[in-house]
Amino acid sequence: MSIAIIAPYKKDIPVWKETFKKLAPELTLEIYPDIKNAKEVDTVVVWQHPHGLLRDFPNLKLICSMGSGVDHIVADPNLPENIPVTRIVDPRLTYSMTNYVIMGILNYHRQFTRYQADKVTKSWDMSNPEIDISVGVLGTGQLGGDVLDKLAAIGIPACGYGNSPKEGYRHSYYHGEALDDFLKRVNVIVCLLPLTERTEGFLNKDLFRRFNPGTYLINVARGKHLVEEDLLHALSEGWISGALLDVFIQEPLPVEHPFWDHPQIMITPHIACITMYEAAVPQILENRRRLHAYEPLANQIDLSQGY
Amino acid sequence: MSIAIIAPYKKDIPVWKETFKKLAPELTLEIYPDIKNAKEVDTVVVWQHPHGLLRDFPNLKLICSMGSGVDHIVADPNLPENIPVTRIVDPRLTYSMTNYVIMGILNYHRQFTRYQADKVTKSWDMSNPEIDISVGVLGTGQLGGDVLDKLAAIGIPACGYGNSPKEGYRHSYYHGEALDDFLKRVNVIVCLLPLTERTEGFLNKDLFRRFNPGTYLINVARGKHLVEEDLLHALSEGWISGALLDVFIQEPLPVEHPFWDHPQIMITPHIACITMYEAAVPQILENRRRLHAYEPLANQIDLSQGY
Repeated sequence: MSIAIIAPYKKDIPVWKETFKKLAPELTLEIYPDIKNAKEVDTVVVWQHPHGLLRDFPNLKLICSMGSGVDHIVADPNLPENIPVTRIVDPRLTYSMTNYVIMGILNYHRQFTRYQADKVTKSWDMSNPEIDISVGVLGTGQLGGDVLDKLAAIGIPACGYGNSPKEGYRHSYYHGEALDDFLKRVNVIVCLLPLTERTEGFLNKDLFRRFNPGTYLINVARGKHLVEEDLLHALSEGWISGALLDVFIQEPLPVEHPFWDHPQIMITPHIACITMYEAAVPQILENRRRLHAYEPLANQIDLSQGY
Repeated sequence: MSIAIIAPYKKDIPVWKETFKKLAPELTLEIYPDIKNAKEVDTVVVWQHPHGLLRDFPNLKLICSMGSGVDHIVADPNLPENIPVTRIVDPRLTYSMTNYVIMGILNYHRQFTRYQADKVTKSWDMSNPEIDISVGVLGTGQLGGDVLDKLAAIGIPACGYGNSPKEGYRHSYYHGEALDDFLKRVNVIVCLLPLTERTEGFLNKDLFRRFNPGTYLINVARGKHLVEEDLLHALSEGWISGALLDVFIQEPLPVEHPFWDHPQIMITPHIACITMYEAAVPQILENRRRLHAYEPLANQIDLSQGY
């Protein structure tokens, strides 16, 4: 039996291939679109696979996401049924994400870009050296929960918001209809929601209008959470004072996109957290071993929840 | 008896005066240089006072620094003897300082300025998204200790260096002759030393030469810790890859100073941590009350150590 990598938009497939070869030299590895023997494939390793394609593997037993996100898998209306789907959970990935988010929060709090501008004009302005902040984290899964833990540890006021009730959650938490109560408490919003049908476009004009005026926005989840033209509108209205974005609807962000030149928007190229091959490949191989040994899989997702 | 404020270079004396008046309306407050009755002064509140001046107060009982630093007091060779000296200790001040330092560390770790430059050229470059870091904190007093605590809490490897041995310190700690062992372990150096005769000019060419090549430097202590021309040399040699500086030998930093235009040096105008009037004035009044009540003072410094 063999493994197939199906990630038509990923440019780093040679490194994935090399990492698999190093850790499992005996393995037969197929790379889409050059699949030679679909019948032999029992495991697919996927990122943004063509919808419906997975039905072409009659002996498929395991679908592995190449990252922590699985929205690109569950979005497939023709996903083969009753096949387990797993994601990558990597402490190093959480470390990267949280550090990125805290960087963004502290740059706003201590006004890093203001002082950069002052450096250019050689201005020595000591007035109002910090902005009081209270952070709201949308999404309190593994990544959002870690951000809340670390903010608490360094003493920055923060609370979380999610869709479901959570009894006895370790941080201040709002859900469902309490969105306005949550928004009233915070002036920095971090989006770490999973991408589902319910959360696509969640960051839109109607939400931004309810922000405390001048709220700062950080989106590190998925590009589709944000209605991009609504951000431009919210910035011009002053509902939002600035944004740090790591993800975009179209990636790479097209050169003609207005975000590139917007002075209140900071862009990074989807690097807040990446899947390290060294971490991901062993997890995929271990889950395949467990599958063959009839052991419970690690980091299997609940398809009924979509994450 | 009365209090005298002696801070010839501070521009915010009116706010200090107002805060004292609000909290202690009955108090007689004198402001240097218009001291009307030096004999009545039992407490001086000082920042960079003229050396020798404090001998003009025959009934002086208490010298209060207006900030956490006291080097400007102990530097006076004609300081009256056997008069207690106190500093301001404010959790909010520690909070500000630590947040500033972590901001600087994370901006280096996640290469914030690299992505700012990429934004200008509209480059989408996902390669090498983070620099592995290990942080060394020079000075492990209240401020340095808090930075080490918070770095540990967010999982960033860090260790401290100081002059004296510390038994059972809660973080990895080097002292005295072990400087090279400390330097070998780290690629980010944060200076939070007190300014004393021993530490003035500590950040110099001979030290920088011993850094791991490309070490990143953050100085938030005092301008005189750094031999400023040696930093320029170390940057040109590649011993240091960049620096975030909040303090300078001459402040405001003169417009002709080469740091302003240096692309590898980031400048902030001594705002990493400031003394909040609201926090400092009550501490000064409380210590004066304790003095009159013969109670032990809070945050009294040990003049034999100079901090």
